[in-house]
Amino acid sequence: MLEKYIAEITPLDRAAMDDAQARLDSLVKPPGSLGELEAIALRLAGISGKTRYDPARRCVIVMAADNGVVEEGVSAAPQSVTLAQALNFAKGITGVAVLAKQFGADLIVVDVGINADIDSPFIKNRKIRKSTWNIARQDAMTRDEAERAVLVGAQTAIEAARDGYALIGVGEMGIGNTTTAAATLCALAGIAPESAAGKGAGLREGAYLRKIEAIRAALERGKPDAADPLGTLAKVGGFDIAAMAGAFIGAARARVPAVIDGFISIVAALVAARLCPLAREYMFASHDSFEQGYKHAALALGVQPCLRLNMRLGEGSGCPLMFAIIDAACAIMRDMGTFEQGGIAGEYMEAVKDANFLVRGM
Amino acid sequence: MLEKYIAEITPLDRAAMDDAQARLDSLVKPPGSLGELEAIALRLAGISGKTRYDPARRCVIVMAADNGVVEEGVSAAPQSVTLAQALNFAKGITGVAVLAKQFGADLIVVDVGINADIDSPFIKNRKIRKSTWNIARQDAMTRDEAERAVLVGAQTAIEAARDGYALIGVGEMGIGNTTTAAATLCALAGIAPESAAGKGAGLREGAYLRKIEAIRAALERGKPDAADPLGTLAKVGGFDIAAMAGAFIGAARARVPAVIDGFISIVAALVAARLCPLAREYMFASHDSFEQGYKHAALALGVQPCLRLNMRLGEGSGCPLMFAIIDAACAIMRDMGTFEQGGIAGEYMEAVKDANFLVRGM
Repeated sequence: MLEKYIAEITPLDRAAMDDAQARLDSLVKPPGSLGELEAIALRLAGISGKTRYDPARRCVIVMAADNGVVEEGVSAAPQSVTLAQALNFAKGITGVAVLAKQFGADLIVVDVGINADIDSPFIKNRKIRKSTWNIARQDAMTRDEAERAVLVGAQTAIEAARDGYALIGVGEMGIGNTTTAAATLCALAGIAPESAAGKGAGLREGAYLRKIEAIRAALERGKPDAADPLGTLAKVGGFDIAAMAGAFIGAARARVPAVIDGFISIVAALVAARLCPLAREYMFASHDSFEQGYKHAALALGVQPCLRLNMRLGEGSGCPLMFAIIDAACAIMRDMGTFEQGGIAGEYMEAVKDANFLVRGM
Repeated sequence: MLEKYIAEITPLDRAAMDDAQARLDSLVKPPGSLGELEAIALRLAGISGKTRYDPARRCVIVMAADNGVVEEGVSAAPQSVTLAQALNFAKGITGVAVLAKQFGADLIVVDVGINADIDSPFIKNRKIRKSTWNIARQDAMTRDEAERAVLVGAQTAIEAARDGYALIGVGEMGIGNTTTAAATLCALAGIAPESAAGKGAGLREGAYLRKIEAIRAALERGKPDAADPLGTLAKVGGFDIAAMAGAFIGAARARVPAVIDGFISIVAALVAARLCPLAREYMFASHDSFEQGYKHAALALGVQPCLRLNMRLGEGSGCPLMFAIIDAACAIMRDMGTFEQGGIAGEYMEAVKDANFLVRGM
């Protein structure tokens, strides 16, 4: 099933992108002068096949799961916070809940492995198992569980697209997941634990050293293979990261733009891109997380975020901010006038053509 | 009058900022984890005296004027484009008009020196004179004209605040103003024309060299003194930049946050900060313009923008995007729940206190 989804992901629609480029160049502004907003508008055209994209309905999918590695003392918060926050999403009081509401997005919270029995109409039960195992001592999960977790994510995104969501953010809640994300990043990008691991949500020095040790132990024990992203998830990842990677795959399969949040989210995006390189074309990086591993993951994935906010909250909290930037790109395409409508022609148009040539030649 | 306004600008309200910090630390998130959003929320409290700020009404003030230096062949576009675009703001088809509408902001277009007679109910007539003189050959304006242009800006911002605008963006339209802005930046920050001048809206190599020469000629001729910002405006600036500097002064005087757009806007902000260092506390940088002088101006002013979009349109087009970020900061303060409301306490709160200590100690 996962292979089928992956096989169904296709490249962007180049003809629609050419049309979008022609419209962008006709708008009353120096060519290329709206920078990334133009690049975003172009990709949205390639994704949707339409010059004008309307992402009125948008959501943030939050994958919640527990991670066995918290046993190693790698986190400032106890495991119970995963459950508490999952419930707080429903109350609308967490960072991502507030920001989603502010920017007109719904929250879809999915339990892929919270270490508790939950009975909440607000939380989708797609639990693979209660918490992964401790990656410092054994594989996080079986390969079959990894595939099932990825599928949960893919199906969640595909269902969201079917429900009319035209813009999907990918977030998480899972105490300990900066450790598993860092281990996954080390495996996929070949970097050292010291470079991948940050101090997360304000870790003390002792816990930070334990975190690096746990990552090192996981890598030495599991020997994850960068060429096998699914095996890497099983060995050193988590249910949250696996389901998030699946959400990126599902969004691409459904031809819906997917927004990357912070460190955990970009590692999941990297996993998705390793499973299916075409999926990357559907991804939009939001903000460069304060977490130091982020920049290594962004480099490995080949993306550059639009926002510089020193955020390190996770949850998907950066996604709604990026929705506003994407709204801006859509507004430009929809509402700006052309040079003709703006009564500017002749001499200036000649200069613009020259400039156009120059800008494209850069 | 200008001196009076400047004398009336006061520091941020530290007591309100302490209250805001206490609330931020009580919210259900690791301390400091919302990064710049928290820093913005704090400053809004300091500006307004209130923990929760509501900038429902917001505007972008666009200062439009012509610049005599276009005679030197420094611009890709003819001077007539200043007028054409000023009229296009009214039609709602320019970049800033579209983005302002998208983010709920009004446009206030002010003619401080467009080189034409205009009769439009949409454009405020505060014309100092039709176009400045050519800075490569003579001073742009008299010192008295410079002061009057700054006052136009200050009064426009103060009136906007009186009309209920709680968030003000500062933009411009003026063919040739990347040249005058670069000259002003060179004078105030002591950098070379080659570092301050960029290729603007797609300038060819020949025009770029003429631009650098014009700046050099203006600086050698006028010998502007960094310690005299008003004299610098008169010698090598423009009516647009002067009025924008005034808008930053006026916003600070009215205790309303002011958003910086791109290169011209940040140079005007730097002029304002040199006239009144306290004015800087009321400024918010939006995006780092593609124009290479921007980073020098940001360094001189001591600000770091939140958005990385490679934009180079001007007009104030980056301001509405920053309004969305500021909205996010306000939403956090208004809508997030506390740890207590989130049912998280005890063990985690201890960790949070430690983390808090660590984060503050960084």
